[in-house]
Amino acid sequence: MTYRDAGVDLDAADRLVERIRPAVTSTWGRLVVGGFGGFAAGIKLPPGYADPVLMMTTDGVGTKAEVARRAGMIEGLGYDLVAMCVDDLAAVGARPLALTDYLAVGQLDPDRLEPLVRSIAAACSEAGVALLGGETAEHPGVMEPDEFDLAAAALGVVDAGEEVTGEGIGAGDAVIGVASPNLRSNGFSLVRTAVVDRLGLDAELPGTGRTVAEAVLAPSVIYAPAVLEALLRIPIAGLAHITGGGIAGNLVRVLPEGVMAAIDTATWTPPAVFDAVAEVGGISHDEMFRTFNMGIGFVTVTARRHAERVIASFGASGHEAWQIGEIELGPRSVRLV
Amino acid sequence: MTYRDAGVDLDAADRLVERIRPAVTSTWGRLVVGGFGGFAAGIKLPPGYADPVLMMTTDGVGTKAEVARRAGMIEGLGYDLVAMCVDDLAAVGARPLALTDYLAVGQLDPDRLEPLVRSIAAACSEAGVALLGGETAEHPGVMEPDEFDLAAAALGVVDAGEEVTGEGIGAGDAVIGVASPNLRSNGFSLVRTAVVDRLGLDAELPGTGRTVAEAVLAPSVIYAPAVLEALLRIPIAGLAHITGGGIAGNLVRVLPEGVMAAIDTATWTPPAVFDAVAEVGGISHDEMFRTFNMGIGFVTVTARRHAERVIASFGASGHEAWQIGEIELGPRSVRLV
Repeated sequence: MTYRDAGVDLDAADRLVERIRPAVTSTWGRLVVGGFGGFAAGIKLPPGYADPVLMMTTDGVGTKAEVARRAGMIEGLGYDLVAMCVDDLAAVGARPLALTDYLAVGQLDPDRLEPLVRSIAAACSEAGVALLGGETAEHPGVMEPDEFDLAAAALGVVDAGEEVTGEGIGAGDAVIGVASPNLRSNGFSLVRTAVVDRLGLDAELPGTGRTVAEAVLAPSVIYAPAVLEALLRIPIAGLAHITGGGIAGNLVRVLPEGVMAAIDTATWTPPAVFDAVAEVGGISHDEMFRTFNMGIGFVTVTARRHAERVIASFGASGHEAWQIGEIELGPRSVRLV
Repeated sequence: MTYRDAGVDLDAADRLVERIRPAVTSTWGRLVVGGFGGFAAGIKLPPGYADPVLMMTTDGVGTKAEVARRAGMIEGLGYDLVAMCVDDLAAVGARPLALTDYLAVGQLDPDRLEPLVRSIAAACSEAGVALLGGETAEHPGVMEPDEFDLAAAALGVVDAGEEVTGEGIGAGDAVIGVASPNLRSNGFSLVRTAVVDRLGLDAELPGTGRTVAEAVLAPSVIYAPAVLEALLRIPIAGLAHITGGGIAGNLVRVLPEGVMAAIDTATWTPPAVFDAVAEVGGISHDEMFRTFNMGIGFVTVTARRHAERVIASFGASGHEAWQIGEIELGPRSVRLV
C-alpha cells in the first residue's frame, strides 16, 4: 500500500507548487528575503518605524468556499481571503506586510487549485502584501474530492503608540461608514440555507439583475490601503472592520466605557443583495443587521471636525464613505435606529 | 430564519472566546502589546537584532485531526500544530515569536473545543511563542458536527545574514539526525487507511505495547528551542524539518548543487510504531521512508569537527541525536542506504 493509494499525491503537490511559483513570487517586493520553496520565507520591515509592533491576524472565507465550489466560481475567493485578514490589520492601524495561505482540499488537483492561488496572489498585490508562503493539505476521505477550505494569516506593522484602539473615542465624534457593495465573506451558512438551497445558484436573485451565484459571490472590497492612506493624514480615534457579524457587534469592540454609538440606518440604502437575501430567506431586519454588513464594510470614528476629510480621503481612494452616526454619552453599546 | 437556525451560533463563539482567554493570555510574555479580543494583537521584536528578517510559515495537523476525533483524544494536537509551524521556522534559523491558530468546526461546542485550544496554548508556552490570535469558524452542513480541522501560522525573526539556508553545506560535512519517538503529524491519510481502518483504534498496535490510538496519536516533539540553543553556540550549515514527507524529500530542499547526502539507515532503529504501521499496512520499506520521518524528526548538517558538539547540545536539551550520514560530492540528492 502507498501514500498515493491512500489518496495523497505528493507529486501533484510538487506540480502545484511549481505552477504557482510565478504568481506567488510576483507579490514579492524588494523587502522579501530568501527563495521560493524553503521551510519559511522572510520579509524585512519597511523603513521608518522607530518602535515597531508586529501585528498578526488570521481568518478564513467560511462557507463562501462551499457556495463558490458549487457554482464553479472560485476566482474571487482570493480577494475575500486577503480582505478578511488585511482589513483586520488595518482596523488596528497596522500596515499589512505579508500573508500565508492555508488550503485544505479533498483531492489536490493542480488544474483546479491554480486559479485559486492566482486569485490570492492578485489580491495580495492589490493589498500590497507579499504572499510569503502557504500550505496545501490533502484530506482524502475526510473532505469530498472537490471540497476545499481556505484560510490565511497576515502580518502587519505599526509604530508603538500609533495603534488605533478606540481609546480616544468621545461624545460628539462622527461615525463614518465605508461602502461594501456585497456580502463580503460573512453569513454564508445563512445565505446557503436561506437562499441558495431555495432558489439554486442560477436563478435570478430578485432585484439584483444577477444570478444568485453572481450576487452572493461578488468578491470583497479590500479596504486596507485606503484606511492606511487616511491614517497618514487625519487623526482617527477608532476603526472597525465589519466581519464575522454585523455593524453593532464589531463597532462595540472598539468603544471605550461610557460612550455609545448611535447609527442612523436611514443614511444609506443597503445594496439590493441584502434586501433579496432577507426576502427570499424570510430573515428579519434585526437578524440581517446582526449577521451581515448591510452595505457598510468598514467604520471609522473621528472628531467631527475631521469627518469631511476622512470621507474625502476614502473617496479619493475609490471608496464611497459617509457619516452614518455619532458617538453619545451612555452605556458602552451600539444603537441602530 | 436566523443565523443560528442555519447552524452558526455567535453566542457560543463568544463563550468559547471568554473561556480560552486565560490559557491564551498565559502565553503572552512582556513583548506582547495590546489586549485580548481586538481585531489583531501585536508583539515587539526581542532586543538584539541589528537587521531583523521576519519569517512566516503555515501548516496544519492534517488528518491526524480525524484520527484524534474518532479516538476522542484531541489533547495532543496542540503540540502537533505548534511543532509543525515553529520547527519550520527553526529550520531556517529563525526564532519563533508568535502564532495564530485556525480551527474549522462543524459545530462550535465550547466544551469540546476548549481542551484543544488549551493544548495549543500549552505547546506555545513550551515553544516560547505567544498565541497572538485565532479564528474558530463554524461550517455547518459542510463538516460533520464534531469534525474539525486545525491549522496555524507562525512568525519568527532572524538577523539578516544569519539565516540557515544550506548554502554552506560541503563534502565531508556530518549529517546529524534528531530523534522523533513517533509519527509527528504526517502521513495520517495512509495511517488511517492502512492501519486504523483495519485494526480499529482500541486494538493493540503489535510490538508497541500501546493501542493503535495511543501509538499513532502520540504528540509531536517540539525541536525549535533545542535548535536555537545549538545555533547560538555552534556553526551549522543546514537544517531540515522532516515534515510532509520523509527524510530524503526534506533534506534535499536545503542541499546546494553538487553535493549529495548519504544516509546510513543502519545507524538507528526506528521506533516500533513505524515497523507496526509497515507490517499492518503492507507498506514497503521505500514507501515508509518516503512518507514518514522513521524516527528522525529534524536533521542538522555541520562540519565534521562540530558534530560532537551539536550532538551534545541536543542531548543537553533533552533530544537524542546522532550522526546518520555524511555529505559527498555528487548530483544534488539524498541517498538512503
